[in-house]
Amino acid sequence: MKLGKRLAVEGAGTAWLVFTGCAATVLSASLPAQGCNVLEMAAAFGFALTVASYAADRAASAHFNPAVTIGYAISRRFPVREVGPYIAAQTIGAIVGAALLIRVASGRPGFSVAVSDFGSNGYDDHSPSEYTLAAVFVLELAVTFAFVFVHLLMSSTAARRKAAPIAAGVCLAAIYLVAIPVSNGGSNPARSTGPALFVGEWALDQLWLFWAAPLLGGAAAGVVYRLVSRQQSHVLSAPLRDGV
Amino acid sequence: MKLGKRLAVEGAGTAWLVFTGCAATVLSASLPAQGCNVLEMAAAFGFALTVASYAADRAASAHFNPAVTIGYAISRRFPVREVGPYIAAQTIGAIVGAALLIRVASGRPGFSVAVSDFGSNGYDDHSPSEYTLAAVFVLELAVTFAFVFVHLLMSSTAARRKAAPIAAGVCLAAIYLVAIPVSNGGSNPARSTGPALFVGEWALDQLWLFWAAPLLGGAAAGVVYRLVSRQQSHVLSAPLRDGV
Amino acid sequence: MKLGKRLAVEGAGTAWLVFTGCAATVLSASLPAQGCNVLEMAAAFGFALTVASYAADRAASAHFNPAVTIGYAISRRFPVREVGPYIAAQTIGAIVGAALLIRVASGRPGFSVAVSDFGSNGYDDHSPSEYTLAAVFVLELAVTFAFVFVHLLMSSTAARRKAAPIAAGVCLAAIYLVAIPVSNGGSNPARSTGPALFVGEWALDQLWLFWAAPLLGGAAAGVVYRLVSRQQSHVLSAPLRDGV
Amino acid sequence: MKLGKRLAVEGAGTAWLVFTGCAATVLSASLPAQGCNVLEMAAAFGFALTVASYAADRAASAHFNPAVTIGYAISRRFPVREVGPYIAAQTIGAIVGAALLIRVASGRPGFSVAVSDFGSNGYDDHSPSEYTLAAVFVLELAVTFAFVFVHLLMSSTAARRKAAPIAAGVCLAAIYLVAIPVSNGGSNPARSTGPALFVGEWALDQLWLFWAAPLLGGAAAGVVYRLVSRQQSHVLSAPLRDGV
Repeated sequence: MKLGKRLAVEGAGTAWLVFTGCAATVLSASLPAQGCNVLEMAAAFGFALTVASYAADRAASAHFNPAVTIGYAISRRFPVREVGPYIAAQTIGAIVGAALLIRVASGRPGFSVAVSDFGSNGYDDHSPSEYTLAAVFVLELAVTFAFVFVHLLMSSTAARRKAAPIAAGVCLAAIYLVAIPVSNGGSNPARSTGPALFVGEWALDQLWLFWAAPLLGGAAAGVVYRLVSRQQSHVLSAPLRDGV
Repeated sequence: MKLGKRLAVEGAGTAWLVFTGCAATVLSASLPAQGCNVLEMAAAFGFALTVASYAADRAASAHFNPAVTIGYAISRRFPVREVGPYIAAQTIGAIVGAALLIRVASGRPGFSVAVSDFGSNGYDDHSPSEYTLAAVFVLELAVTFAFVFVHLLMSSTAARRKAAPIAAGVCLAAIYLVAIPVSNGGSNPARSTGPALFVGEWALDQLWLFWAAPLLGGAAAGVVYRLVSRQQSHVLSAPLRDGV
Repeated sequence: MKLGKRLAVEGAGTAWLVFTGCAATVLSASLPAQGCNVLEMAAAFGFALTVASYAADRAASAHFNPAVTIGYAISRRFPVREVGPYIAAQTIGAIVGAALLIRVASGRPGFSVAVSDFGSNGYDDHSPSEYTLAAVFVLELAVTFAFVFVHLLMSSTAARRKAAPIAAGVCLAAIYLVAIPVSNGGSNPARSTGPALFVGEWALDQLWLFWAAPLLGGAAAGVVYRLVSRQQSHVLSAPLRDGV
Repeated sequence: MKLGKRLAVEGAGTAWLVFTGCAATVLSASLPAQGCNVLEMAAAFGFALTVASYAADRAASAHFNPAVTIGYAISRRFPVREVGPYIAAQTIGAIVGAALLIRVASGRPGFSVAVSDFGSNGYDDHSPSEYTLAAVFVLELAVTFAFVFVHLLMSSTAARRKAAPIAAGVCLAAIYLVAIPVSNGGSNPARSTGPALFVGEWALDQLWLFWAAPLLGGAAAGVVYRLVSRQQSHVLSAPLRDGV
């Protein structure tokens, strides 16, 4: 597939992911008796990723997440020269998704971005349970490492790629069940950037962490994957032609 | 398959979808400590669609939704002359599903359609969180676009069609997690019509939106799909013989 | 497979289904802030059925439910002479599952079967939301019809049978999301009999309905399936040799 | 695969399972209006196991649980000389997972392992609903028997192994929906050991049960599996070469 079209897929998929996942918490904020918020948001992000991965139909190039792109590049399964365009497309997609969400959310009387976290990620006072910077950093790094490592493994053979959309969605839901009470669920710098741009102030101040920790986690996953695949080069290190 | 039989499948599947999905919120209305209503209703609609799609066993002609039928017709993968009969069968099925639900629901002491929303869709005062007409319109258009586009993609090849029942159900659950707090979850004009006929008054007054926005979204998905598939005619534009 | 072994599979699977599904509501009864009871019970029944169907590995003879057995027999895909033994094995399995559950549940200080519904099905005063006998009858008949019809369809070809464990579990979860607030979720006479024997009194008095309505629904599904399959005898009416 | 690498897989997978599953309840402990705790924890454990099983890509040697290892060894499908190393790797992995969780959890102001159960298993006063020792023992034995028996069945043929990651995750979620209110969800001695080491005191005092009951259940599953497979030696008793 040509680069232009793949960038369109990345942008559209990330917009869908950010809109659906954040909407599940932002749009229901005024409902009474909401006890399932963590579950709903985790399910919406996981479902949205499974759907986007099925629709894109090639897990190897359906990243929707800069940390995934970094992981593939570092494991030498994705061309370095396309990392920039991919991350740009993902970030623009996330901003479009967040903009659409603002449009809908502002139709609720009394809605104000300023008094809502709008699905933004944060630490200290802006963590849902006031987790410290260090704890949020460790968590974001660890869960993004796991997510990107699973992503790399699930696209390593044709047989595995069939189950990749289910595995990716289930994995994202699992790490979001863990991360939402801590950081509101990041592990994807583009997803963090979309809402933060509209919330501004603290969300922008704290945004650096939600780029640094996930990218570090994704890079670590790429390094570990290369070490593992070197040992069984016939199975895991085959270049994915359709991913390029 | 003959048209008559396919119309029966459309009607039966839509009746099952509307009954199951709306029942999950209508019949549990008097239980105390209900905090999971959004999740339950989204799950019921998603599960019901997955089951109906598996049972119908050919995603291409299992629409259960006028917006999907419009999307297939506009992308030239469904004959225009069958659009009318399909939408009629879906709407009749939805009314039958809602009638069965009234029968069961009225067996609860104190139940009254008048004081219940009965799973109907609405905006302004009749939105669960009082979202405005404009916000509901934008949301319904956007999520129906996404749903119909995914539907068109997942039926484009035989390999994809195997995963279509899962993808369709997961996608419906995802957009309902988003849409239930806003509009009670529409994106399917037949599903909106069934309960509205029994609630009457405001539900009928506002019903136009839940035909206009989803049909517009479905039509837009059909247009975008054609533009995309033109570029790779060997992959995506193959006419689905079994869909006709 | 020999009849004796298949009866053991039926009994073990039904015991697992009744124990797991009922336990999800019975054992958590004293937890505070339980808002997800309907969802948990529906998920546990659906998950348990998917697991049992995968483990039994032949949907055609993994019924775990007298209504399913009746449906297969009436659609002439199951020998009439084995209906009795199957239903007996399922009922004994359900009683064993309920007995194990009593053993565990009675380990909670203050537990008493008499003041608990113990997952039993009921109508009027014993419906969770006090639904009348007529409403419960209609609901049980309707959802069992849908469940058994889907079961018959999903075992009709080898390709469909691969997805049968997922479809059966998802279908059971969907109808239980609907039925739990009404009748505590029946549509399986064996599952209803297990807990009722231990609760006694009202549960035994009302047990007739949870045999009559589901068996009628299952029989109706068998009749409709035969009518449908007669039209396409090459696809649907092939006798399932491995089911016998 | 060499033993060293398989031990690394066991350790990493068990660390991921314990971290994700326990984190879903430990990290959200301070959120208000938590009504879905049982569901969230069951989902996180089930999702994590499905992801780990997909990633490991050979259900036969992806145990992540000493009870599973015992079950395979007793059914003669796993070499006895590797049981020790496997259980050691699983236990070390679980401790690493719990240590990472402590690191993150201690970033919440006011967090103290001493006043939290930290996802530990217990009976009597330390059961979430104060279930007695005997009830917890019976439950842990019964659900571990079911889990290990399903695990053994799902890896018995190549066709079944494809669905094994889904079946294992769904089965774990089902038994955790049952077991969390009783014992906080054990059925895996390594998973129980990780958090108990950090909680100390009562958790260590009661840890014996969460080794004894699950190992007994897993061993019983191995015995029953051998009895069953002896009858159909051509189907079930084939040694799994890739499991060794």
